Amino acid sequence: MKLHGYFRSSASYRVRIALNLKGLSAEHLSHHLRKGEQRAPDYLAINPQGLVPTLEGDGGIVLIQSLAIIEWLDETHPQPPLLPDDPLRRAQVRAFAQAIACDIHPVQNLKVLARLRDLGLAEEQVTGWAAWVNREGLAACEKLIIGEAGPFCFGDAPTIADLCLVPQLANARRFGVDVAAFPRLLKAEAAAKELKAFADAAPERQGDAE
Amino acid sequence: MKLHGYFRSSASYRVRIALNLKGLSAEHLSHHLRKGEQRAPDYLAINPQGLVPTLEGDGGIVLIQSLAIIEWLDETHPQPPLLPDDPLRRAQVRAFAQAIACDIHPVQNLKVLARLRDLGLAEEQVTGWAAWVNREGLAACEKLIIGEAGPFCFGDAPTIADLCLVPQLANARRFGVDVAAFPRLLKAEAAAKELKAFADAAPERQGDAE
Repeated sequence: MKLHGYFRSSASYRVRIALNLKGLSAEHLSHHLRKGEQRAPDYLAINPQGLVPTLEGDGGIVLIQSLAIIEWLDETHPQPPLLPDDPLRRAQVRAFAQAIACDIHPVQNLKVLARLRDLGLAEEQVTGWAAWVNREGLAACEKLIIGEAGPFCFGDAPTIADLCLVPQLANARRFGVDVAAFPRLLKAEAAAKELKAFADAAPERQGDAE
Repeated sequence: MKLHGYFRSSASYRVRIALNLKGLSAEHLSHHLRKGEQRAPDYLAINPQGLVPTLEGDGGIVLIQSLAIIEWLDETHPQPPLLPDDPLRRAQVRAFAQAIACDIHPVQNLKVLARLRDLGLAEEQVTGWAAWVNREGLAACEKLIIGEAGPFCFGDAPTIADLCLVPQLANARRFGVDVAAFPRLLKAEAAAKELKAFADAAPERQGDAE
C-alpha cells in the first residue's frame, strides 16, 4: 500500500495510527501542503479534492477521506477492532470522531486559513479563528466522554475516536489552546501515547518532518 | 423516536431522508437556529455541540452527528440498505458523503458565517465564502462519481452519498452557485427526488418551514 500524506496533516496522522494498530505497512509519499503539492495534476487525478490522505491499495484501488479509509481498514483487517460491536456504542464512537473530523478539523485547515488571509484578516485574527474552532470543538468533545471510565475515549482500547483526538490535540496546542481545560481528553491522549502505534505515527517521527 | 432538527438544516435533512427510506416515523422537534435555540441549556445537555440533528431513541438513548445517526439506523434497521456490501464500495460511498459532511457543510454553516461577520467581513464576502466552499466542494464530488453509471451517486438505489448530496445542492443554490456545472450530481439528484422519501424530507415540506 501507498499512503499519500504529510507529516503535519492531522487527517494523515489518523490513518498512520490505524495502519500501525493493524500491523500494516505502507510506503509513505509526502505532499508538501504549504507548497501546494496536493494540487499537482497527477495527485488531483487520484484525489479530486486535493487533500491528504489518499491510500492506494493492492490492485489499483484508491481510497480517500481519512474516516472512510479507516473504516475500510477496519472492515478488511478486523483485528484489533477500531469500533465496538454494539450499534449504540459504534454510533457514539463515530459521533465523537465526526465532531472532530467534520466540525473542527476542516474549519481550521490550511485552505480555510489561507482564504481568511486572502480576505484581508490579520495573522492574529487567523490564528484566533483556528484557536476558537479547536477550543469550542474540544470543549464539546470533553462533554461527550466525561462519563466514560476510559482510559481511552470509549473503553479500555483505542477506537476511531482516539485516532481523531490525538492529532487534533496536537493541532490545538499549535494554535495556542490551553488544553488543560480538557482533563478527560488528556486522559485518553495519555493512554494512547503509551502505545507504540500512536508514538510511531506522530508528526515529528515522519520522514518528511521539518 | 424524536428528531431534534430544523427545516433548513441540511444535516437534519439527511436524517429525515434516512428515516423515510427506512419507513420509520419520529416526532420532529424544531430548534430555530437563527434564534439560537440550539444553544438552550436543556438542548446542550443532550447535544454538547449545540448542533442539530439529535435523535432520541427508545430507552433514553441519544444520538448525535448525522452520519453516525444514519449508520446507526442502517445497522439497526438494515432494509433498505444505505451502504453497499463490498468494503471498497462502502469506502467510496462514505468518502463521497464525508467530502460533503466534513469538507463542505461545516465550513459554510450558520456558526461559521456568523463568525465571519463578527470579524468584520461584508455580507457579500460572507455569501461569497459560502458559495466558494460549495462550488469547490461539489466540483470535487462531481469528479468522484463521473464514471458511475448511476442513476444515483453509486448504483441504482440511494446510499448515504445521495442523502448528503441532495441537501447540499439545496444549500449551494441558496448561495447562488451555478449547479448546472455538475451534470452527474444533478442526475443523481433527479433520481432521488422521484422518491417520496426524499420529497417528504424537503425543507419546504416541514412543519417549521418559514
